[in-house]
Amino acid sequence: MINEKYRDMLSKKSVIRNLSEFATKRGTEIGYENVFDFSLGNPSVPVPDAFSDAMVKLIKEENPMALHGYSPSLGNPEFKKAVAESLNRRFSMNYKPTHIFPTTGAAGAIAHALRAVTVPGDEVIVFAPFFPEYIPYITGTGAKIVTVPADTEAFQINFEKFDELLTEKVKAVLINSPNNPTGVVYSEDTIRRLTDMLREKSKKFGFNIYLISDEPYREILFEGVKCPYPSKYYDHTLSCYSFSKSLSLPGERIGYVAANPADPDSETIINMCGQISRGTGHNCPASLIQQAVAKTIDLTSDLSVYETNMNLLYKELVSLGFSVVKPGGTFYIFPKALEDDAVAFCNKALKYDLVLVPADSFACPGYFRMAYCIDTEKVERSLTALRTFVRTEYPGVGH
Amino acid sequence: MINEKYRDMLSKKSVIRNLSEFATKRGTEIGYENVFDFSLGNPSVPVPDAFSDAMVKLIKEENPMALHGYSPSLGNPEFKKAVAESLNRRFSMNYKPTHIFPTTGAAGAIAHALRAVTVPGDEVIVFAPFFPEYIPYITGTGAKIVTVPADTEAFQINFEKFDELLTEKVKAVLINSPNNPTGVVYSEDTIRRLTDMLREKSKKFGFNIYLISDEPYREILFEGVKCPYPSKYYDHTLSCYSFSKSLSLPGERIGYVAANPADPDSETIINMCGQISRGTGHNCPASLIQQAVAKTIDLTSDLSVYETNMNLLYKELVSLGFSVVKPGGTFYIFPKALEDDAVAFCNKALKYDLVLVPADSFACPGYFRMAYCIDTEKVERSLTALRTFVRTEYPGVGH
Repeated sequence: MINEKYRDMLSKKSVIRNLSEFATKRGTEIGYENVFDFSLGNPSVPVPDAFSDAMVKLIKEENPMALHGYSPSLGNPEFKKAVAESLNRRFSMNYKPTHIFPTTGAAGAIAHALRAVTVPGDEVIVFAPFFPEYIPYITGTGAKIVTVPADTEAFQINFEKFDELLTEKVKAVLINSPNNPTGVVYSEDTIRRLTDMLREKSKKFGFNIYLISDEPYREILFEGVKCPYPSKYYDHTLSCYSFSKSLSLPGERIGYVAANPADPDSETIINMCGQISRGTGHNCPASLIQQAVAKTIDLTSDLSVYETNMNLLYKELVSLGFSVVKPGGTFYIFPKALEDDAVAFCNKALKYDLVLVPADSFACPGYFRMAYCIDTEKVERSLTALRTFVRTEYPGVGH
Repeated sequence: MINEKYRDMLSKKSVIRNLSEFATKRGTEIGYENVFDFSLGNPSVPVPDAFSDAMVKLIKEENPMALHGYSPSLGNPEFKKAVAESLNRRFSMNYKPTHIFPTTGAAGAIAHALRAVTVPGDEVIVFAPFFPEYIPYITGTGAKIVTVPADTEAFQINFEKFDELLTEKVKAVLINSPNNPTGVVYSEDTIRRLTDMLREKSKKFGFNIYLISDEPYREILFEGVKCPYPSKYYDHTLSCYSFSKSLSLPGERIGYVAANPADPDSETIINMCGQISRGTGHNCPASLIQQAVAKTIDLTSDLSVYETNMNLLYKELVSLGFSVVKPGGTFYIFPKALEDDAVAFCNKALKYDLVLVPADSFACPGYFRMAYCIDTEKVERSLTALRTFVRTEYPGVGH
């Protein structure tokens, strides 16, 4: 008999996927270059040449049995060492390889971190708007998701609501800065208030609430913006990372969990990740990819295009009368729709071949997301479509 | 608070891992070439050159965004097509790409298959002796493991006990042929009796019991031995495969679930695997590896060394008086220990630098496993150690 829980999930198809499929289909009609597809967060710049060279060198020169053999169950030692040393260098941390667990991207990292610090029935707090995949990550462990409503002024944290919802049932808090979908980076003040509150409540409740920090956009920061490293502010932090965006290789599924050494259970948690892995059939990222990343640990793709694209879009959106917070990083921007129903708004945009994602599935109705990881030339052409769309459909708006 | 279930698993360290670590440590003392390490099932022959060439060509010639970008959530279309066509060619099946779900090796395949066709509390039948990782795979889904005792005569199936244990609570039956740890291949008669019984009981219970067939050793077959393809005999079969052994790349984590098209839910099950993936953070094997395997789908490493090694060991074991069934494939052999306590037997063997794995953790006490995926030259040298060990420690045995 098949499992009805998973069968039922089939009927709830992802809005983003549907829109992306629409864009592809429309592309076959008018040429994909004429579809202004802002639906998917797939990097638009190539992997660094040095990474490709590292892979080729490994394939040609390494002993194939060592290169392609099983990783130890807690991951490739060189990868773990390279990650620990890089984090220590960049964020003045104190990680050892034993604090690092390699995963299949941030998805794998979050899935392991959640299983390590919750049991079925526990609550996990997330902040709206949030990446819709957080729902299966959290409910997949048997935990319950508790959503703090958005701070729509600045897309920092609605602390009043957070304080209310942070009860004894909450065992973990999941944050994402720089943020998908807003592009906003949490300020140092936000991180301080957040972690002070976690410390205070942990003391009150008599156990440590874990902070799970999802950081795949950490390296995509715009001019003048600093992104505080959350683990630096709170000992009980599990940092979840993916090289998907920084190295432009989302399909290669490589990331890690880094447990703060100041947490007395940090090494136990990493060892537990190895056990969690056994039940989910995870068993480490691909060996070749772990080894190639170890050799190019501090490299990134040329990420500058995302800032160029953001500036073009932000300026145009503001001039068209949109209410929008300027992104500090990522490749997303998150304006308020020009009518209350963002789904209706985005449907109208499709007539102009603008593929925008309504934020209802990000738990923030009335807003929409644009993923501008596309060529700048296309962003430039999209501005005309955007102007025509707004002036035709919303003639009353102040533009 | 950390999850005690996973913390508790840490104290139960794998016997195989412990022995393998002993072998590595002993190697630093006397040179690893002098440790007769039969502990680990890690392939000892290189990946085919054509596979390495395919990877280098992809890295050098493909568009890097396409090569390293996200796989569709149900996997790379070329990989799925290549797998379906290869299975159809080889086993006269009728798979379409929509019947194939790419996974991180057989571990990922079994984890997905189990979640698709069981709910927590259901029973899953396994046959002793079995690979110890089946325990976390099954209990990780919330299902219960039910063990059919070994047929120690031939290591086929103890049908009397199977019939007793195959109650209405059982939703899936997990088999593994060619078998780890015995090296035995299920005969066509065994597969027929097994699948006849599944059909009969399914009819009686009013639902289809799924057959989950773990087949990573399918390509390692010895002279004259045929391995029936179980799905050919039973429509409700989920075939779980890994390229780890056939292509010698266990660390690259690549395999699949293939659902028999004759099962009315086959495509639904594959689509459900995509949903299951979301909760475990699995999200497809590495894109580069999927694409390289698609281009070399029918290749294998040169697997002939395993038969050479098997023949050397089998002959020696028989002449030393061991009771042992001749393997039909894999790189394992499974003799009966020369005393009731196989743990004591294997501990004594360590004095002769022979690293053998007692089969208690395979649910078959009194036997031991030798993994002969090592150089033939080392197997030859090990025979002397084996003779000395047996003659010294068990002087009464008929040799």
